[in-house]
Amino acid sequence: MSAVANLSTGPISGSTKVYRELPDGARVPFRRINLTNGEHLDVYDTSGPYTDPDARIDLEAGLPRRPVVRDRGTQLQRARAGEITAEMVFIAEREGVPSELVRSEVAAGRAVIPANHNHPESEPMIIGKAFAVKINANIGNSAVTSSIAEEVDKMVWATRWGADTIMDLSTGKNIHETREWILRNSPVPVGTVPIYQALEKVDGEPTKLTWELYRDTVIEQCEQGVDYMTVHAGVLLRHIPLTVDRVTGIVSRGGSIMAAWCLAYHTESFLYTHFAELCEIFARYDVTFSLGDGLRPGSIADANDAAQFAELRTLGELTKIAKSHGVQVMIEGPGHVPMHKIVENVRLEEELCEEAPFYTLGPLATDIAPGYDHITSAIGAAVIAQAGTAMLCYVTPKEHLGLPNRKDVKDGVIAYKIAAHAADLAKGHPRAQQRDDALSTARFEFRWEDQFNLALDPDTAREFHDETLPAAPAKTAHFCSMCGPKFCSMRITQDIRDAYPDGTAGEIERGMAAKSAEFAERGNRVYLPLEATMSESTP
Amino acid sequence: MSAVANLSTGPISGSTKVYRELPDGARVPFRRINLTNGEHLDVYDTSGPYTDPDARIDLEAGLPRRPVVRDRGTQLQRARAGEITAEMVFIAEREGVPSELVRSEVAAGRAVIPANHNHPESEPMIIGKAFAVKINANIGNSAVTSSIAEEVDKMVWATRWGADTIMDLSTGKNIHETREWILRNSPVPVGTVPIYQALEKVDGEPTKLTWELYRDTVIEQCEQGVDYMTVHAGVLLRHIPLTVDRVTGIVSRGGSIMAAWCLAYHTESFLYTHFAELCEIFARYDVTFSLGDGLRPGSIADANDAAQFAELRTLGELTKIAKSHGVQVMIEGPGHVPMHKIVENVRLEEELCEEAPFYTLGPLATDIAPGYDHITSAIGAAVIAQAGTAMLCYVTPKEHLGLPNRKDVKDGVIAYKIAAHAADLAKGHPRAQQRDDALSTARFEFRWEDQFNLALDPDTAREFHDETLPAAPAKTAHFCSMCGPKFCSMRITQDIRDAYPDGTAGEIERGMAAKSAEFAERGNRVYLPLEATMSESTP
Repeated sequence: MSAVANLSTGPISGSTKVYRELPDGARVPFRRINLTNGEHLDVYDTSGPYTDPDARIDLEAGLPRRPVVRDRGTQLQRARAGEITAEMVFIAEREGVPSELVRSEVAAGRAVIPANHNHPESEPMIIGKAFAVKINANIGNSAVTSSIAEEVDKMVWATRWGADTIMDLSTGKNIHETREWILRNSPVPVGTVPIYQALEKVDGEPTKLTWELYRDTVIEQCEQGVDYMTVHAGVLLRHIPLTVDRVTGIVSRGGSIMAAWCLAYHTESFLYTHFAELCEIFARYDVTFSLGDGLRPGSIADANDAAQFAELRTLGELTKIAKSHGVQVMIEGPGHVPMHKIVENVRLEEELCEEAPFYTLGPLATDIAPGYDHITSAIGAAVIAQAGTAMLCYVTPKEHLGLPNRKDVKDGVIAYKIAAHAADLAKGHPRAQQRDDALSTARFEFRWEDQFNLALDPDTAREFHDETLPAAPAKTAHFCSMCGPKFCSMRITQDIRDAYPDGTAGEIERGMAAKSAEFAERGNRVYLPLEATMSESTP
Repeated sequence: MSAVANLSTGPISGSTKVYRELPDGARVPFRRINLTNGEHLDVYDTSGPYTDPDARIDLEAGLPRRPVVRDRGTQLQRARAGEITAEMVFIAEREGVPSELVRSEVAAGRAVIPANHNHPESEPMIIGKAFAVKINANIGNSAVTSSIAEEVDKMVWATRWGADTIMDLSTGKNIHETREWILRNSPVPVGTVPIYQALEKVDGEPTKLTWELYRDTVIEQCEQGVDYMTVHAGVLLRHIPLTVDRVTGIVSRGGSIMAAWCLAYHTESFLYTHFAELCEIFARYDVTFSLGDGLRPGSIADANDAAQFAELRTLGELTKIAKSHGVQVMIEGPGHVPMHKIVENVRLEEELCEEAPFYTLGPLATDIAPGYDHITSAIGAAVIAQAGTAMLCYVTPKEHLGLPNRKDVKDGVIAYKIAAHAADLAKGHPRAQQRDDALSTARFEFRWEDQFNLALDPDTAREFHDETLPAAPAKTAHFCSMCGPKFCSMRITQDIRDAYPDGTAGEIERGMAAKSAEFAERGNRVYLPLEATMSESTP
């Protein structure tokens, strides 16, 4: 684990870590962005103790653990019973909403709190369309490349920039050990796809998989503390032929593994036939289902086809079964979908799956830009989140090409923070626009440092500015490199604003409107000097 | 001009330049992407002779010139007269549409062909919602930085990656000379904002501007061959007070210059009062108006406000005047707009401006990501183009921070090609999905080289792949670094597909559906072995 010594810790530029203490002693973290005008903005913070200079980071010991109630069932069961759990109180403070809203959304199955009893290192968070849109970052090594240390580093790095959950998709060696390091040190919920590890145990041969082996793998992961698991239980034998004429067949790893198994034995998937048993296991730990879309489209051509929607219908059945066991459920979604077919996915998911939180991979709005799929998919992600998707699984620039490195992870996270925030704005999330307004005000007032620090990525914003105007005075200058000192439209605007003292704009507007009407009456002569009008309405 | 020796010329990876010859001898360029399976895909090509290895590039001499008809008026006037011009025939071949559609859209004012008689070096193209969505790349030096050679290089570089037009926004020294080099060597239409040069002539003092000076500057640029010009004639004196309470006031350079002028003299803008005279000048050269949105919102808070829409209403009046003079018109649009307010912009523009082509700057869907505004704005751009915007003005990662360098220009162009293509797909543009299908088929068949070459940016796709698996054999391997050789879902899918020989999928599906109904009749027992069903429906 030597490479982990390179972990990025300490505050993000311009920010300090603050906590709001709850009556039970829990401390809800925020990132406070300190502005040069003496104001500040507190924003949602996913980074855990790593950005707190007062926290002692010891990867061997793991993060501090919060108290966990183990004997009253799942968050869903407790919500239904009318209980507002400690996690719900924490989340309400974090999101700035009433705790009763948290409880009622969880009770209705419209939101989930992925919080395995055995992962007390995580800070409670919620996934549901009534709350801020969340993003997930996939990490994990493969048979070909990367080490445990790199993956722990990526986890810390991804949460630093805003990942709300992490999925460990390791498929290579040391899956158990990699996951252990990640879980003990992750401040956010961790998801997995247990079939990957199960397959590793049978040497990569899908036909050697059995229910018993899979079940034991799930229990092993539940014991470790995995908060949510992708289960491709909707890939049924009868769905498989629907994929044959597709351009890209089955692109989900889990989906194709299960399809291969079903086909080999010409029998129904053990994930489907043993689903109730799986629910009983999940309920014991309060693990959340992420019902996988094993038949999601892997190309624009395959979007919204019969295979995809047949599986979604099955996921709807499974949702009901899971909820009848008191288990929390979210539903995974595509994939590759052209923009005009995106909203249908959300509507159908809500209809078939009782509005269980939708958790989508992008979708990519076109197939033609490998190397830039964080962008192709941020477009689809923003659109699908606006329509009601609760969590977005990021896509990095390396999608389809290779495993993401540190830079790719950050690029993916930032692109998805943009998509999620754009959707929060569009949905009218109460706190969302505060940050846009703060940043735009700073921009207009030439408070460059504030503009950088309010940005999703202050380091890059500052670096780009400094490429052209590196000198310190340029950071307070009332111009920038785009226009130079004489042309600046912001400065000219300020001159205009100075001509209209504060608070008079409404009055001016009314005066102007009256004059404008007068003007229209006189036949809209455009050459009329408006000097009189102006001086009448300004003090 | 020594740095221009570094121009990127020669074909894009995997492509060759092909021409389709028209009856009049004109040659319509395409980029032919050659695939390893013997097939090819011809795509729209904006790059001009620079990607043709047989072309001789001589920047001093400029590009070859096509014949120009000077004495029959503008494309709009000729279209109204029922004439299908040589430019329209060229465009029809380029877009793959009937030439009559080109003529009728131009005649209706729903599309423009920016083609100054004095810019015969450009290859005719069209901007209108019935055609492929276009993108513009801004270049130009400023008082602070960059040289002529750099700007010519950026022009060649931007069109190489797909810029359909270029705007030269130079504000520093040598504006005339920079523009001359760009025009003589640009294969795409060139736009400008003449007020920038006018202001330069009066030493950056807006109050020294006069109609005569502006007019002479416009004539100078018309003579040089500028194809379209941004004119902020919609910034009226009565609109200015509407901006006072904004978070970011007036952010358009042209808008703020005109506002400052209006305010200084308390009189109406000379652009507005002399608009008819401007139309007469534009008509002589067939220069297209790009009616600027000088009051566009510069922040989420200011989107769709009274100032913005008051100006849009004025642009509607001006559109009618321009068209009455036979001058082509497009309308510029925002800026910064949250997703839920985007579509209203298009609807209002279409209503007020007689569906003149809309040409928008992004819009940015959030303010909080300086350094990544190619992404924040690609989201807004895709949404607004889907709604009917005809051309998208790119935004680079440097927006708000500094002048774009070569890398930024490419990043901006690629992000906007993605947005434009996503919109073409969503609008059902007839040719758009061909490329997605070709790329996805190549991906599914592990034709790595074809996947790279079909990408918007083959170089980056290849480079990202090679970071993990550089060896040549990996380019034909039926797996990639994400999953490694054993886990590949694509390979497993292929195995599945092999189990269902070609052409049987429909049959299988029908057989399965019948069995599925049978299955439902028997009470949906999920444990039923489906082996019998499968063997019945497979040969």
